Order: sequence, then C-alpha cells, then structure tokens
Amino acid sequence: MKTIQFDTQHLSRFVDTNELKSLSAEVLEAKRTLLAGNGKGADFLGWVPLPAEIPAEVVDGIKADVERLASKAKVFVVIGIGGSYLGARAVIEALQGELGGLRADSRFPKVVYAGHTLSEDYYHELMGLLDSEDYAVAVISKSGTTTEPAVAFRIVKAHLEQKYGREEAAARIVAITDARKGALHDIAVEEGYRMYVIPDNVGGRFSVLTPVGLLPIAMAGFDIDRLLQGARDMRKVCIDSDSVDENPALLYAALRNILYRKGKKVEMLVNFEPRLKYISEWWKQLYGESEGKEGKGILPHSLCFTTDLHSMGQYVQEGERLMFETVLSVKAPQFGVAIPWDERNLDGINYLQSKSLTEINHNAELGTILAHCDGGVPVLRIELPGIDEYVLGQLIYFFEFACGVSGYVLGVNPFDQPGVEAYKKNMFRLLGKPGYAEK
Amino acid sequence: MKTIQFDTQHLSRFVDTNELKSLSAEVLEAKRTLLAGNGKGADFLGWVPLPAEIPAEVVDGIKADVERLASKAKVFVVIGIGGSYLGARAVIEALQGELGGLRADSRFPKVVYAGHTLSEDYYHELMGLLDSEDYAVAVISKSGTTTEPAVAFRIVKAHLEQKYGREEAAARIVAITDARKGALHDIAVEEGYRMYVIPDNVGGRFSVLTPVGLLPIAMAGFDIDRLLQGARDMRKVCIDSDSVDENPALLYAALRNILYRKGKKVEMLVNFEPRLKYISEWWKQLYGESEGKEGKGILPHSLCFTTDLHSMGQYVQEGERLMFETVLSVKAPQFGVAIPWDERNLDGINYLQSKSLTEINHNAELGTILAHCDGGVPVLRIELPGIDEYVLGQLIYFFEFACGVSGYVLGVNPFDQPGVEAYKKNMFRLLGKPGYAEK
Repeated sequence: MKTIQFDTQHLSRFVDTNELKSLSAEVLEAKRTLLAGNGKGADFLGWVPLPAEIPAEVVDGIKADVERLASKAKVFVVIGIGGSYLGARAVIEALQGELGGLRADSRFPKVVYAGHTLSEDYYHELMGLLDSEDYAVAVISKSGTTTEPAVAFRIVKAHLEQKYGREEAAARIVAITDARKGALHDIAVEEGYRMYVIPDNVGGRFSVLTPVGLLPIAMAGFDIDRLLQGARDMRKVCIDSDSVDENPALLYAALRNILYRKGKKVEMLVNFEPRLKYISEWWKQLYGESEGKEGKGILPHSLCFTTDLHSMGQYVQEGERLMFETVLSVKAPQFGVAIPWDERNLDGINYLQSKSLTEINHNAELGTILAHCDGGVPVLRIELPGIDEYVLGQLIYFFEFACGVSGYVLGVNPFDQPGVEAYKKNMFRLLGKPGYAEK
Repeated sequence: MKTIQFDTQHLSRFVDTNELKSLSAEVLEAKRTLLAGNGKGADFLGWVPLPAEIPAEVVDGIKADVERLASKAKVFVVIGIGGSYLGARAVIEALQGELGGLRADSRFPKVVYAGHTLSEDYYHELMGLLDSEDYAVAVISKSGTTTEPAVAFRIVKAHLEQKYGREEAAARIVAITDARKGALHDIAVEEGYRMYVIPDNVGGRFSVLTPVGLLPIAMAGFDIDRLLQGARDMRKVCIDSDSVDENPALLYAALRNILYRKGKKVEMLVNFEPRLKYISEWWKQLYGESEGKEGKGILPHSLCFTTDLHSMGQYVQEGERLMFETVLSVKAPQFGVAIPWDERNLDGINYLQSKSLTEINHNAELGTILAHCDGGVPVLRIELPGIDEYVLGQLIYFFEFACGVSGYVLGVNPFDQPGVEAYKKNMFRLLGKPGYAEK
C-alpha cells in the first residue's frame, strides 16, 4: 500500500522531544474531543466518518451522470466558491497537470470554473468559450443565494437555455445543494435538475469527499473510488493510533502548534510539482478559515519550488524569521523525460545526464531544506508516494483530521467562520439589498 | 491620460500625517541616493532610465521577429526562471485573461513556459504539446548555466531539431542573454540564433522592460510601444516630484515602511480581477528578493478576491494582526456581461439586475476594505483606470521605483540576492557537480 509519510528529521534543531512529549496530552485530548463530538462546532463533524459512509448509490449516480454528460459536453462548468470549488479544483489540477487545458484530445470534458469571482472580464471570456463549445454545468451552493455563484448561475443558465432550449438545458445541469430547502434546491426541483445533497453537518472546506468534490472530479475523468479508498485508509490511521509519534495527523497538529507558540506565525506549504498549486489553495482555506480567529492562528502561505526559489527564495533564506515550511515531496512522478547528451557541453550540465529530472528535483528539494534549516526556517516534510487519486484521498483526510485536532489545541472553534460575513454585510448595504439599508 | 492613482483614505486610523511627515526626509534621501547612483547596489541601476533609453532598433527587431515567427508557430515556448520569466508572464496573463489558453482563435501563438521548474511530469506534458503543435522558442538566461533553464533548453532544443532539422530549428529560436560572454551567448553565436541582450546593469527582477519581457509580450500579441510609453510617463512622475504626498512611489515606500515599523510584517497584494494573479507573483519577487535580507523585510503574500474572501477572508478578518493589504483596484474592465432578470427571483438577486457586474465587484471591494479596516488591517489602494499595456507599463515602473526607494529606507541593498545561492550550493554538492565535491 502506498501511504504518505511524515518526515521530521529536519526539525530536530528547532523542536526537541521533550516539547513534543509535553504537548502530547493536549493533542490526545483534542483528538478525543473531536471523536466524541463534544467540543466547539460539534454540529459540523459530518466529515469525520464521511469516506466510510458515503452511500454506494451516490457514487453510482455520479458515475452515471458522468457517462451521460461526457458524451455531449466538451466543457463542464463548475459554479461554486470557497469550499464549493477549491477541493474539486485541487484534485483535478493535481491529476491533470498544469497544461491539461491546452490539449484537445481528452475523452472527458475540460472543467472550467465560475461563481468564484465577480470579474466582468472573466465572465465575458467564459461566455465566449461557451458560445463555441458544447457544455454542461454543475451548480454548487448550500443556499443558492451566495452572491457570486447566484450571479454566475443566472448568467450561465440563461445562456444554456438559449443555446439548447429549456428542456435540454435542464438535462445538462446538476445541482448540488441542501436536501430540503433553499433557493437552489427550489429551482432544481422546479426545473427537474439532477440533484445531489450537501450534508447539513459538513462545512464547505471539509466537503471535497461529498458530491461537491466528487462530481466535478469524476467529470474530469478521475477515479473517485480510489480517492475515497485513500481517505478511508488514512481515516483508519488517524483514528486508530494514539501515539503522537506514529499518527501523522497528531504529529502535524502538535508540531505546528509548538512552532506557533515559539513565534513562527506563518506556515508555507511548499511543493516541487507545479500541479499541486491548488492543493495549496485548498489547504489555505482549510487551515486559514479553521484557525484564523480570536486574533490567533498560523497565517497560511504557499510556494511552488524550484520556481519560487528564484523569487521568494531570498526572503525565506534571509528575511524576517517568521515562518516554517511544510514540504509536499513527491517520490515518483508518473512520466519520464530524458536529458539529451551534448558533446560540447557549453552549458556545463553533462554531469546531470545520467540522472533523471526527478532525481535532480529531489536533490534541489534536499538542498533547499538544508539551506532553509541553516537559515533558521524549520521544515516539516510530507512524502507522497506519487500523485494519484489514492494518494490524494489520503492527503485530504490527513489534512482535515490534523486541522480539527490542531484547531482544538489552539483553543478555537475550527468549524465556524464568523469573520466571512463582515465584508458581505457592508457589500449588501452598499448595494442596497433589501433588509440591509443604511443603518 | 489614464494614470494610476494611489489612495490612502482608508489608512487614516492607522497612520497619522505626522508619522508620514517625520519619515519624509528619509524617503527623499533614499530617492536622491537612487538617482545619484551612490547607494548600495548602484551597479544595478540600469532599470531607472530604461524605458526612455531602449533603442528603437531593438523594439523594431522584436516586432520583425514576431511577424516572422507568429506565421509559423502556434505555440511559443518561453524558457526562463525568476526575473527571466515572471515579468513577461505577469503582463501576458493580465492582458489575455485567465481562460486565454482555452480558445484556439488567436492570431498569435499561445505562450507556454519552461525552464521554471524541474518537474519531470511538467516536461512530459509540455513535450506532448510540442509533438502536436508548431512552435518557436525564446531562451532567456544571462549565463546559460542556471540549472532549470539549461536543462529545459537542452530538452526543447533537441526536440525542435528533431522536428524541423537543425537549420530550421535555429531559425525558430531567439536567445536573450549576455552581450559578450556565457554559455547561452556562445551557443547562440555558434548556431546562428537571433540574439537580444540583457543589459549588465539590470537585475532579473527589474528586467521586464528589456527584451526579456518585451519579446514574449510582443509574441503574445500585445503592444510593447504602449507598455514602454506607460513606463516612461510613470518615470517622469516618480522622478519629477519630491512631494511624498504627490509622488505615488514615494508615498508607497513611506507608508509600507511606517507600517512595517509598527509590526505589520506581512503585505498582502490583493486584486479583484483574477487575470492580475501573475502581477502579484512578479511583485512578490520584486519586493521579497529586494528587501528580504539581514533578517528584515516585509513578507509578500497575495490574495485574489472575492475568490479568496471565501478561503483566506476569515483569517484576514479575525486572525493574527500581522498584515496590511495593498489593493489593486481596476476601474473599468474591458467587457460587459448583463445579469438576466428572473421573474420568480428565487435566488433573491433581482435587486442587482440594474447593476453591472463591475459595479457589484466594486461594492464588494469597498465592503471588504471597510471590513478589513474595522478588523485592524490597514489598507492601501492603487486604482488602475483599466487593464491595458499603457496602464501595466505605469504599474511596473511605479512598483520598481518604489521598491528601490523602499529598500534604501529599510537600509538594505535592494539590488542583490545573496540568499538565492544557498540552496544551489547544496544541490550542486548533492548532485556531484564538478567543483562542488563534498567539503
């Protein structure tokens, strides 16, 4: 079984074993609270058993929808924002690669996103694409009234109905929403859309293993059974072990809290594979929204190396000592590309010719970790055996479970997001939304 | 004339006018040092007069190369890393939009990037694309021996020569490198490539207005004359005025140093237009690499709103009070998209129907700024009249000039990057590079 590994060997000069030992009781208490469901935000713990409990008929329904829609759509528009968008995008981009959008030979639709921005230029561009390509839509919103996805769905729905007629448009839309109520629920019932449910007890940032993430991921051509299997296997690891040394989620939760208490207020999630960029975006929401409250929490940041070693590398090496790094290391990529031999060797890189690019990349990674530790930046390392559905399923559950534990150790409610309303209230007042008049 | 505007109205509760006044002498001294060329790193001030001094024959040569190559290439591969890559990508993505890569109807080649990563999977993907499309190449490196671009150029050059033969391959390659020496210079002379020069006195992160940025930007179909005109006009503003209140570069340099001295150690560059994402990446290198040294400097971070209001928004509103924000606000986007009326109004957004998406986006922006100020996050705002070549030229020069001044106020050499070597030395040793044996 290919499992992700948590590597703390580069941390020894920053955290000693006694510090870890002395936090162990707190971490285990946080885990017990999480599993007993008697802590803050316990109404939103539906994600904990999720990978083991998702009904087979939901997964089968998704697969049937993919078969039906993939045959008639070249483009699949996913309308959602925040947790209704980032999980799917993270998994899809990790699996399809950075240039995935440029090639026209896939059997599956190209997934594009909407409802995650209010940029008028973006919608102009999107509608130009939808004018010329056959497409289908997933609209994802608990309420159906969140401004960004509601606006996007109005625009796209009108376009789709004009392009295909109301009946065929309805057959090309899947709604993922509340089981019983809300604007999107009501529209979907009225129009006869295929519907999937966002469970009441799963918050947006923990929803990638519900239809919110599974439907778009399957639509892009990826194996959601393996994704769920990875999450199930990691769940067992996270739940079974009470050893902070052996349970990677407990270890991660412990170490980041130790580093935070020592003044490391920024965590940089680092990858050496550009296709993991949106895994970092998903992770930023998971940790930033769960922990950033009451004036507390580690500020999430992310970097893509070696690219950013030539931009932010200088700062990490010698700037303010604010941060630690968590490196996502990929052991075995999927493909091989040889470096050609050059007799003249003007560029001086013939010494690399017997090595694979991955070997060079791994040495860049180790060289970087050693340099940053020397510069006073603690480095954790998470080793992924590869990038596939099974590994990503593990990674998702690992980060989710560690986040719940870490938030409880920090002392906050990791499952609410009260601060997200502040800008909305101002915006509604400025826009003259009924009920939000100038006060 | 459409000029960018600097807006400090939301800062009044964080910075008072006396603080600004008391820093004015330092800021003006920094400006004088920069223009006199007698401060730290003065060997690298070639970017200061650059927009006014670039020879007409260089610009004309680039346009001729674009004509020649655009007729036979569907894809244009830009090989470079750090400053040899980010400026071009920032301008191209800002002008072409996020989905630019998905449409096949442009008269100009699609620009893709290489030499900025060591990911084997990325090169596998890229070579698959290059198998199926006609392409041309720009290879950008001062020395020609930086590992990432050297490896990429070997791979791409061999592929190009196999695809078109050595002679035609040489006609499809443009080298941007040192005027007289170095591996890439020597290869280019030997093979007869078209060549452009990276001036000796312009560092990578300040090089976007040299052929390093201009050639790829022109190849993507954009107007480099207007870009340079914008930079020239902003240069005049930055140089002519000694009023910290009226010179936006001096004001930005002053305010960020005042905020830094008050403990705001993170600056978040915020946009509300997703196509500005790589402007933030370019800015991160410019400021992070210029200021992050000697244990000092503001840590650059970036956010794309309203997208990230639904992920990092909670942290910004209520997490650690570490940061201030600099908002890039776009007054008038290029295109219009109407929000359809819906008689039933189940989603409750009919109240928005008389408004443009941009108006909604602007109200989201103002609502966000007010909320974040209420939450203790100081907000600067830079208003761009639109997103076009002329405005981006202004923005680039504004940020560059402010960076030089800001770095001198901070007390560092803003034009070196000693920390970038640390990981390379380790990597070379680990890879057994001749001359880097285990010490």
